[in-house]
Amino acid sequence: MKVVVNLKAYPCDPVGVATAAREVADETGADIAVAPQAAHLDRVADTGVETWAQHVSAVEHGSHTGSTLAEAAADAGATGTLLNHSERRLKLADIDAALDAAERAGLDTCVCANNPDQIGAVAALGPDAVAVEPPELIGTGTPVSKADPDVVTDAVAAAEAVDDSVSVYCGAGISTGEDLTSARELGAEGVLLASGVAKADDPKAALADLVAPL
Amino acid sequence: MKVVVNLKAYPCDPVGVATAAREVADETGADIAVAPQAAHLDRVADTGVETWAQHVSAVEHGSHTGSTLAEAAADAGATGTLLNHSERRLKLADIDAALDAAERAGLDTCVCANNPDQIGAVAALGPDAVAVEPPELIGTGTPVSKADPDVVTDAVAAAEAVDDSVSVYCGAGISTGEDLTSARELGAEGVLLASGVAKADDPKAALADLVAPL
Amino acid sequence: MKVVVNLKAYPCDPVGVATAAREVADETGADIAVAPQAAHLDRVADTGVETWAQHVSAVEHGSHTGSTLAEAAADAGATGTLLNHSERRLKLADIDAALDAAERAGLDTCVCANNPDQIGAVAALGPDAVAVEPPELIGTGTPVSKADPDVVTDAVAAAEAVDDSVSVYCGAGISTGEDLTSARELGAEGVLLASGVAKADDPKAALADLVAPL
Amino acid sequence: MKVVVNLKAYPCDPVGVATAAREVADETGADIAVAPQAAHLDRVADTGVETWAQHVSAVEHGSHTGSTLAEAAADAGATGTLLNHSERRLKLADIDAALDAAERAGLDTCVCANNPDQIGAVAALGPDAVAVEPPELIGTGTPVSKADPDVVTDAVAAAEAVDDSVSVYCGAGISTGEDLTSARELGAEGVLLASGVAKADDPKAALADLVAPL
Repeated sequence: MKVVVNLKAYPCDPVGVATAAREVADETGADIAVAPQAAHLDRVADTGVETWAQHVSAVEHGSHTGSTLAEAAADAGATGTLLNHSERRLKLADIDAALDAAERAGLDTCVCANNPDQIGAVAALGPDAVAVEPPELIGTGTPVSKADPDVVTDAVAAAEAVDDSVSVYCGAGISTGEDLTSARELGAEGVLLASGVAKADDPKAALADLVAPL
Repeated sequence: MKVVVNLKAYPCDPVGVATAAREVADETGADIAVAPQAAHLDRVADTGVETWAQHVSAVEHGSHTGSTLAEAAADAGATGTLLNHSERRLKLADIDAALDAAERAGLDTCVCANNPDQIGAVAALGPDAVAVEPPELIGTGTPVSKADPDVVTDAVAAAEAVDDSVSVYCGAGISTGEDLTSARELGAEGVLLASGVAKADDPKAALADLVAPL
Repeated sequence: MKVVVNLKAYPCDPVGVATAAREVADETGADIAVAPQAAHLDRVADTGVETWAQHVSAVEHGSHTGSTLAEAAADAGATGTLLNHSERRLKLADIDAALDAAERAGLDTCVCANNPDQIGAVAALGPDAVAVEPPELIGTGTPVSKADPDVVTDAVAAAEAVDDSVSVYCGAGISTGEDLTSARELGAEGVLLASGVAKADDPKAALADLVAPL
Repeated sequence: MKVVVNLKAYPCDPVGVATAAREVADETGADIAVAPQAAHLDRVADTGVETWAQHVSAVEHGSHTGSTLAEAAADAGATGTLLNHSERRLKLADIDAALDAAERAGLDTCVCANNPDQIGAVAALGPDAVAVEPPELIGTGTPVSKADPDVVTDAVAAAEAVDDSVSVYCGAGISTGEDLTSARELGAEGVLLASGVAKADDPKAALADLVAPL
């Protein structure tokens, strides 16, 4: 199971969470990545943890002031990126072009979507992974695997029907090891999580608990 | 073959083009729709031609000032709508929600996309039709069926792989009967066209020539 | 006092509200405009009421599928338009270009903004009027003139400091004659209202009550 | 004169340009800042040059995946930010909120705009500086101070009429010391430049030539 910890724009200590994640990954063999703000990629990558961008722009090198250039994210140490998170929804054509940008820069990709139909849609664009996150559950602490398990199994089926080489992750409300196990049983190969770790008093303990059942 | 004449924001006479389209449809049995500005839907529908919106918003009834409500378009006589035209690209989640809106309002739907990958993506959202229009050919007078026939056949294959009940149209540069025939031979079940008719000195003659080979 | 009734995407009968507004305007001499969906402009204008668009696009005639062309709104009977409503916020450059578009099409303009600073900003672009509408009060039934009267007086001062030929309207929560009088006493020369009339059981009575103190 | 070197998404060496800028600033006393990609802020700031973000988002700490949080930019060493560059135009309300965000994070601000009217508008929002950059001149090598000097003097007048504490910079086509002197003579207190330095074979020589007349 892949575990991607999205730090969003939280008032957390990105290096502290990243160090905790790297330690848990080292100690347990769990596959954990941390996705900080672009401005924090450098220092997060310096901890040795697998580092992801939260977003890259649908652009190549050129006159694109204020963009998040995939190559710059890679320079700063990112090896993967989220795309189309529900807090940063993209135009369809821009998801397609951002996937091209990520591929040029050597970044792994996980495209988020709200429901199984949209998961089928983004799977058709050839990402490495897709993540189903019902927007109404994000930040609630109620895991999608419990609140609406059919969303996960339907998303897995939708992606498989389009391209069975695309991994399916799930997100929204994931915070415990039990949530992770449930997600795996429903067919997910990874999870996105955020506040459950980023806002924890002890991020290392939170992550260790999370991956304990793996 | 479905023929959708997109009037964009052209300085044309929408009622004149609509009347011409209705006459050609009546005289030849061709399946022709005209897509005017939202503010012109009423008067275009009054000509008796099949009338489409160029876009509807991803909203339900409510506090959405400045939206294009699908129900209002339907009230004004529209029976179909384009979505995600390259001049009005939408977020993926909004294509999905606009399709829901169109369905609630009883509108047929045709979702545009730039390339076969994106055609596969939008086909997964369950529209009635999809239209492949390489942006670089729009308005050039060079038909996609001649400039890049593989785009059409690949789009047909991409849609079919995802959902074989979705019709595939093609657009960009279509203006003659030969273009229409080529498109049909490549597997398209319809065409989008715009300037070739909307800006013609004699729209009726242009449309009659276009559909003559059908 | 100018009274602009914004029908948003409400499930109301636009012709019924428009007819009521025209009758109240005729009977009282009040200056009332109705702003329906673009697709309803034609039939609303046919009632004889002053008709406004809810939005026009920052474009000229051309290849702009899915835009709301100012000239098309004018064709359909609009004589004014709102711009930058909080439900349809625009890029600064697009407010500027949409004002140009409206002027070309002969439409009066009222640019909305959230607070006095933004009112000063939009006044610098030369619209006919600006409207201050604190987003947190829209649809609450609590009039801005009561909840936060300083917002109105500060907006009037901000606009005057930049260009004293620009009228200042206020909106958000306006529904009674008392609200209208309060707004006028605070320096507003018009009001925007929406649900108070559009969703009233008897829109004519609601409007008649509203303008009674004028 | 302030000199802001915008590295956009150019395929340049951000640390090389930053080092050159710091050396020229040290040697000449010129006031030079470098604005790299967010992911490069850390390493650019490490050179000791004054470092600016190209953009910050209109958000506070919270659930804003893919945003450019002002506080994160400041953490990484930024002390200022551009906003509303013509390649990253913002909604008016978002310029206002991004200025608040920059102020909270202690960043200096320069809001770009296309023409004198828009300069007046953004000056009303209380930034530290505004920059007029006619989009049609960006990247042309033809300086705005030569192609259209009235744009600069009109922008200075427009800003002063609204708030005379706001500095006015100019951009678009600036590359030589003569351009800088002309801009100053027209009333500008700073310049934005990009390709003239970022794409120069010898960025240090280009910058030294630029600031020589100061």
